[in-house]
Amino acid sequence: MSKQFAVIGLGRFGSSIAKALYDLDHEVMAIDVDEEKIQENLNNVTHAVQADSTDEVALKSLGIRNFDVVVVAIGQDIQASILTTLILKEMGVETIVVKAQNQLHAKVLYKIGASKVVFPERDMGIRVAHLLVTPNILDYIELSDEYSIVEIISSEKMAEKTLLELNIRARFGCSIMALKNNDYINVAPSANDKIHEGDIMVVIGHKNDLRRFEEFVMNGK
Amino acid sequence: MSKQFAVIGLGRFGSSIAKALYDLDHEVMAIDVDEEKIQENLNNVTHAVQADSTDEVALKSLGIRNFDVVVVAIGQDIQASILTTLILKEMGVETIVVKAQNQLHAKVLYKIGASKVVFPERDMGIRVAHLLVTPNILDYIELSDEYSIVEIISSEKMAEKTLLELNIRARFGCSIMALKNNDYINVAPSANDKIHEGDIMVVIGHKNDLRRFEEFVMNGK
Ligand SMILES: Nc1ncnc2c1ncn2[C@@H]1O[C@H](COP(=O)(O)OP(=O)(O)OP(=O)(O)O)[C@@H](O)[C@H]1O
Ligand SMILES: Nc1ncnc2c1ncn2[C@@H]1O[C@H](COP(=O)(O)OP(=O)(O)OP(=O)(O)O)[C@@H](O)[C@H]1O
Ligand SMILES: [Ca+2]
Ligand SMILES: [Ca+2]
Ligand SMILES: [Ca+2]
Ligand SMILES: [Ca+2]
Repeated sequence: MSKQFAVIGLGRFGSSIAKALYDLDHEVMAIDVDEEKIQENLNNVTHAVQADSTDEVALKSLGIRNFDVVVVAIGQDIQASILTTLILKEMGVETIVVKAQNQLHAKVLYKIGASKVVFPERDMGIRVAHLLVTPNILDYIELSDEYSIVEIISSEKMAEKTLLELNIRARFGCSIMALKNNDYINVAPSANDKIHEGDIMVVIGHKNDLRRFEEFVMNGK
Repeated sequence: MSKQFAVIGLGRFGSSIAKALYDLDHEVMAIDVDEEKIQENLNNVTHAVQADSTDEVALKSLGIRNFDVVVVAIGQDIQASILTTLILKEMGVETIVVKAQNQLHAKVLYKIGASKVVFPERDMGIRVAHLLVTPNILDYIELSDEYSIVEIISSEKMAEKTLLELNIRARFGCSIMALKNNDYINVAPSANDKIHEGDIMVVIGHKNDLRRFEEFVMNGK
């Protein structure tokens, strides 16, 4: 069942959300005070409307209250972002997702009714830093403070060995949940499946175990 | 072994990377033309230096060539970002990670020697859109075009049932790799482990299977 979304503020983050929601077959109304941004986003959304979201009358005339989710992606102008969120809350919008500039901004947003506050640049910065520090980890997902799932590129010396021979669970306490490379993916690898040259291993485990395993992969110690 | 990083451009993305690298016990030099940004980042990095990165002499005097990785997080000023990347390449910096404004900007950056080009807002926008469309998916990692790992909140009717009883593998073709809630995580659940009220399931599978499973969880169809 398709939902109705509105995205206010078509910077890089806002316009990306609007296009992604539209590509997922949902109705998207994109709003920005800057006419140029409206032109840029016209083809990627259902409707694009030039309006100042701190103007309550303007928002009302757009029927904003009927939208399931409204995203406020106004970045630099903290005052506009707070005022817009307040207006949306008072109009009875149920789910309001807001981009925050910093912790203080976030606190105010939650107090006045934001359902969820996001920090796109901050979170991507943390993510990129982790990936830079461990070059052969391609991606990861944090399950908890101790456990993660990581994608690690296998090393030559592991090639053509079976999972049984490598005995990773016993030696490092983490387990391989999938093996993949550009043309196939094996999501339920069994003990006698082999690792092929260039395979990426999807591994689940405690962060310390993953680090030991990763050192082993990197320099075979 | 700790690496040496430099981060040029201390907007939200750049300052987040710099702080995250520093917190991971690496040496970080933070550079920005705006003195205010230097003050804001002083305590989160090894050194913070006010400089214009399009000024080759300034970069040389900072000994930039000795850094393992240089991140260029200059956002709006595409010309400065391109010029800086070119200078770094000519000085022999090995790994240059650059934030791009759009596809054209990215193409130019790769042509002049950027090792990796990132789109923080765009990628976070896509991620947030996917999470908004399926509210009870908390997080996900894309393994390939077809396969993902998702975190789904279990429903009441699944509570106190064993994985064997739920028979998810046979019915939906995807498998539960971990069960977690705020106080514990079970990364190798066995057939007779029970799902408890409020448990989050970490599930691996084909996207269509995951969607069918998710519909089942949401409305028990
Ligand atoms: N009152 C307002 N009503 C509608 N749109 C607004 C309002 N104030 C700002 N905007 C729009 O919000 C968009 C994003 O704002 P801005 O570029 O300052 O944030 P940003 O965090 O740098 O964005 P991004 O990092 O996502 O590119 C801009 O296109 C701007 O025109
Ligand atoms: N030539 C330069 N040398 C050094 N720093 C620069 C230069 N040009 C811009 N910067 C700095 O880069 C930082 C990021 O630039 P800007 O804020 O325009 O990008 P942004 O994409 O909006 O950043 P973010 O979204 O990460 O907040 C700013 O602090 C700015 O002072
Ligand atoms: Ca902007
Ligand atoms: Ca955590
Ligand atoms: Ca900025
Ligand atoms: Ca930004």
